Amino acid sequence: MLFPPVVPPDTDAAAAARARQATLTKPPGSLGRLEDLSVWVASCQGRCPPRQFERARVVVFAGDHGVAKSGVSAYPPEVTSQMVVNIAGGGAAINALAEVAGATVRVADLAVDADAVTPQIGAHKVRRGSGDIAKQDALTDQETSDAIAAGRQIADQEVDSGADLLIAGDMGIGNTTPATVLVAALADIEPVAAVGYGTGIDDAGWARKTAAVRDALFRATPVSTDPVALLRSCGGADLAAIAGFCAQAAVRRTPLLLDGIAVTAAALVAERLAPGARLWWQAGHRSTEPAHASALAQLGLDPILDLRMRLGEGTGATLALPVLRAAVAALTSMATFAAAGVTNRADS
Amino acid sequence: MLFPPVVPPDTDAAAAARARQATLTKPPGSLGRLEDLSVWVASCQGRCPPRQFERARVVVFAGDHGVAKSGVSAYPPEVTSQMVVNIAGGGAAINALAEVAGATVRVADLAVDADAVTPQIGAHKVRRGSGDIAKQDALTDQETSDAIAAGRQIADQEVDSGADLLIAGDMGIGNTTPATVLVAALADIEPVAAVGYGTGIDDAGWARKTAAVRDALFRATPVSTDPVALLRSCGGADLAAIAGFCAQAAVRRTPLLLDGIAVTAAALVAERLAPGARLWWQAGHRSTEPAHASALAQLGLDPILDLRMRLGEGTGATLALPVLRAAVAALTSMATFAAAGVTNRADS
Repeated sequence: MLFPPVVPPDTDAAAAARARQATLTKPPGSLGRLEDLSVWVASCQGRCPPRQFERARVVVFAGDHGVAKSGVSAYPPEVTSQMVVNIAGGGAAINALAEVAGATVRVADLAVDADAVTPQIGAHKVRRGSGDIAKQDALTDQETSDAIAAGRQIADQEVDSGADLLIAGDMGIGNTTPATVLVAALADIEPVAAVGYGTGIDDAGWARKTAAVRDALFRATPVSTDPVALLRSCGGADLAAIAGFCAQAAVRRTPLLLDGIAVTAAALVAERLAPGARLWWQAGHRSTEPAHASALAQLGLDPILDLRMRLGEGTGATLALPVLRAAVAALTSMATFAAAGVTNRADS
Repeated sequence: MLFPPVVPPDTDAAAAARARQATLTKPPGSLGRLEDLSVWVASCQGRCPPRQFERARVVVFAGDHGVAKSGVSAYPPEVTSQMVVNIAGGGAAINALAEVAGATVRVADLAVDADAVTPQIGAHKVRRGSGDIAKQDALTDQETSDAIAAGRQIADQEVDSGADLLIAGDMGIGNTTPATVLVAALADIEPVAAVGYGTGIDDAGWARKTAAVRDALFRATPVSTDPVALLRSCGGADLAAIAGFCAQAAVRRTPLLLDGIAVTAAALVAERLAPGARLWWQAGHRSTEPAHASALAQLGLDPILDLRMRLGEGTGATLALPVLRAAVAALTSMATFAAAGVTNRADS
């Protein structure tokens, strides 16, 4: 047992939030999904009304993948390392979106195939590039447990530093290939139904990617009921760390927003590592990757946004943060019928 | 001709924005709808990169409707006046959501069936309650042109005060009934397909509402090609003012976010008053009201959010503002491949 049992979010706070929603000056249910989200935040915080998020934190897990050398991505592998520098320097999409949403960004190099940009970014580095999953295990046993532990430790660091909302992001050329394998193995779907165009491959690239996913699935299927073995055989250090991060957020009773296919595939494994962890997560958005929908369905999560995004880095999740903030603000600061002197329907 | 011709948003700025998107450190198209929205903002502002919104302004148009006395709403008519007080006092949903989104709120009493709360709120008041459209015209000719002019004037005031984004909102018990009539008349759809549950009526209320819509449609259909006559016969002073507001925003080259059924129905009329105005609008969200989808289809607008909201007040539009801000931020502040030293796919 890697993770202690996950305690579900507080049902008393949820009930109090539902009851409070009914007293606010609006028709019941008229804020739709915002009402559900406000109840979820209250239950995660164990208090009603909930507090507005003061320290939302994005962690981008970076890693290279041996399979990227097989032409499964539109970009060459060196882009992973370059983008880590870009994120650290504030120039990536996630930096722009996080600033608007009021979140801060940390990037962690788990398995980039280059020297770490800084000692801090590389503090949890497991190896340089994970193995080519079409042909070999992504990681050794030790590396797998180190990577999961790294994700746990990063979650602990952030929660201990005051993070009240975690957002998981990814950066890694080729990482939609192992992510797709994880989802296909756990959701039992065919490669052709699961494989998408990632960062924008052409049809020949899609065929190469599908072949790699099929090859990897032969190795994944026998271990699909063992989440650690699955990460070892067909995941990668970045994906294993994301799984540890998502699971540990739940253990630490901290709400978390999932992003696209890489994060959600890892989260699907995390739910096997720490059953019930999904109750602490919301899906920020719906990616255009086909396997993403399958992973969300497995987790029973309904994405907040659907804006045809497919970038990763935590961008889709971060874009959903203002919706969560609005949900909290409505529940917290709206007047009640009684206080505002507004006639409720029950009185009419 | 009430309105001068609408000048379309700037195509050069749009082209520059598209070109700039292609240089930013992300796969082309991977920000999905955000990229389209950034191009739209650039074209509205006539500059690339666009400026971040500094003065987003919500205007809530309030009015009562004679038809509300026929039991078409779950709430009694006096709630309109009470909610104007609540909005002015900062206790309504729109206040909570606007604060989170970085927008300010103004409420204008066009036809509330009560004395104006303050002289400022009542500065554009046309009458106390619009006529019962199931039986009579909503407005006289003079009141119709006064209400449209009021909306124009409010748009002018806000733009002259520096508003760089306008958001239209509504408050009025019973207002989904005339809004549905406007959409049914302009989109040529049957009442049973258009009528929704508004703030939450029961099936008997829905039957009464559908009967009222049918009766009003008999009066609307003969004038459906004359937008001013349509507002007079089956609109209301609040809806006429929203139409004037949305049209004038376009005349003043100021982008505007549409909200739910009341605002979008008025916007559908505004597009007849000022053809091409729709190019200056985005649909903030998809309401649960069936006529809303028809109105959006007529306008060729794809809603940004879909969160099962049905509150009005501009809440759905305001919730979409952070998405617009994120679109602007990405286009404005992301690094280019060249500046960040990231290898682009064309180089590989």
